[in-house]
Amino acid sequence: MSMPAKAVLLVHGGAGVINPGSMSEALESRYKNKLGDALVAGHKVLKAGGTSLDAVVAAIKVLEDSPLFNAGKGAVLTRDKRIELDAAIMDGASLQAGAVGAITNVKNPITAARAVMEHTEHVMLIGKGAEVFLRNIAKKIGLTLVEPDYFVTARRLEQLEDALAREVERFDSTRSHKGLKLRKRRRAVGFDENKFGTVGAVALDEAGNLAAATSTGGITAKRYGRVGDSPLIGSGTYADNDTCAVSCTGHGEYFIRHVASYDVCARMKYLGEPVSKAVQKVISSLGKAGGDGGMIALDRKGNAVMSFNTSGMFRGAITEDGEVSVAIYCD
Amino acid sequence: MSMPAKAVLLVHGGAGVINPGSMSEALESRYKNKLGDALVAGHKVLKAGGTSLDAVVAAIKVLEDSPLFNAGKGAVLTRDKRIELDAAIMDGASLQAGAVGAITNVKNPITAARAVMEHTEHVMLIGKGAEVFLRNIAKKIGLTLVEPDYFVTARRLEQLEDALAREVERFDSTRSHKGLKLRKRRRAVGFDENKFGTVGAVALDEAGNLAAATSTGGITAKRYGRVGDSPLIGSGTYADNDTCAVSCTGHGEYFIRHVASYDVCARMKYLGEPVSKAVQKVISSLGKAGGDGGMIALDRKGNAVMSFNTSGMFRGAITEDGEVSVAIYCD
Repeated sequence: MSMPAKAVLLVHGGAGVINPGSMSEALESRYKNKLGDALVAGHKVLKAGGTSLDAVVAAIKVLEDSPLFNAGKGAVLTRDKRIELDAAIMDGASLQAGAVGAITNVKNPITAARAVMEHTEHVMLIGKGAEVFLRNIAKKIGLTLVEPDYFVTARRLEQLEDALAREVERFDSTRSHKGLKLRKRRRAVGFDENKFGTVGAVALDEAGNLAAATSTGGITAKRYGRVGDSPLIGSGTYADNDTCAVSCTGHGEYFIRHVASYDVCARMKYLGEPVSKAVQKVISSLGKAGGDGGMIALDRKGNAVMSFNTSGMFRGAITEDGEVSVAIYCD
Repeated sequence: MSMPAKAVLLVHGGAGVINPGSMSEALESRYKNKLGDALVAGHKVLKAGGTSLDAVVAAIKVLEDSPLFNAGKGAVLTRDKRIELDAAIMDGASLQAGAVGAITNVKNPITAARAVMEHTEHVMLIGKGAEVFLRNIAKKIGLTLVEPDYFVTARRLEQLEDALAREVERFDSTRSHKGLKLRKRRRAVGFDENKFGTVGAVALDEAGNLAAATSTGGITAKRYGRVGDSPLIGSGTYADNDTCAVSCTGHGEYFIRHVASYDVCARMKYLGEPVSKAVQKVISSLGKAGGDGGMIALDRKGNAVMSFNTSGMFRGAITEDGEVSVAIYCD
């Protein structure tokens, strides 16, 4: 898709193996419609004079509430059939930031990240401790609490079972018929939902302030309290009015080692690169290193970039005037 | 202290309010001796042909085992008298990295971070999940497990009680005599141990490879699973053979928002700045933003920088030839 002249909000819903023809047209439409809904929700906030922070939260909430994406409702499951949700948000005007790791009790994890930013002196809270804070403050600031099973969907349970079966298969030198069938099924699908599906948004408001936000369930069958790049400021999420706002998706470990989102900002700041070139360079280095994924970025002039080194990325943009464009595969 | 010609290992033991005359000479000596011990331990590894990773681990273990510093034995306590330890390590040759957050069961958290780097496909594991992984792998790789109470010291219990008393005092409009006494005692000391004391090391080995490592107990009376910059790759810890190895200490939230350790590398890479200038620029911006602290950095030529915007930083360096220099206050 060609980039809109002056974008004010971009969203992504994950990058990965998504080959044309691998999904039914109906499913493609559902993804595209939901990305559109998120863009419209965020745009409405901006048009009403809301901040870029308000807009990214509004957009992300739509994606978190949809079971299509790997964030909030419909997040992938850990090995023991639980969910552990990560999210981060950053304000490009103040460099204030908030993040949560491995939480299970807030309906919209992005609102939990914002609560950390706005109601603590900290940037990152994790696990049970974070949940205590969120429970304590929920009523005061209007956070919606849920029981962990709210997030669990049949589709993700099935994916987990498949993932665990594939592991057994890999360790099983006898190679059962079942294993072969599983492999075939996976190859035929051409759309690996297990690893990817993080959601993100970047926005520019009328005051010229940028914001970035990312929310994820991590990777299917994860264990041991694994944290990816999404909630790490500078890795999966960064915003600075002097450069741009960035949200990433993909193989998180590579985005951490390469400090991917801040690296885009550093290239703009120190090399004077435009946002498009900075993003292309970072995505290309990540690809060379083996780091599959993509990112969306927006500068203060509304220059938008949505780049990925995989076969597809769920993504969309909306202009100042409300013109929506969404896409899944390579142009 | 003047910088040695070709340093191969630097350590820090935290930066903060440390005014000359605020400690007894005996206590100063204990700190300096322990920094020296850490340098000698790491140097021994390098001289025997060990890697920079081996050297930073050897040095950090000495500091973690000492109750003087806020890492490992002697770490500061959470509000409910527990400890939650964070650590990270990074290999400048491969950009491989490992980190743990909020763990309580490994004697030397830096060895836990290294286990994540070398024995998982992940970068960061946190909380109970991380502890399960560490317990499972301990025997195989020789990790020393401990009960959480191993880390608790009388000195940190007293600090916690003082910190909680000061909070009560702040909320107590009647201003009791006890409160005034506490304030006076604190002012007289001129050495605020509550916030700082993270330990870190950077090293350069004979093969020309850099490594960085950081370990901390966080901040006294912390709650809600707060994670600071130490275990976050790019914030408190970073190493890249193309630029330098960095370990930070200070008010972690600022180091996160400014992606402090990677920013040093970015300035070297994109602006061509020498390590000394890059560090000064980053420490100076952090100071202007209100972010107290410091960092140590080492490039592949053995150029060493130890910089801070506070009144002191426990620090030391050792050269190729084994010449040790340690310092606490400003030069």
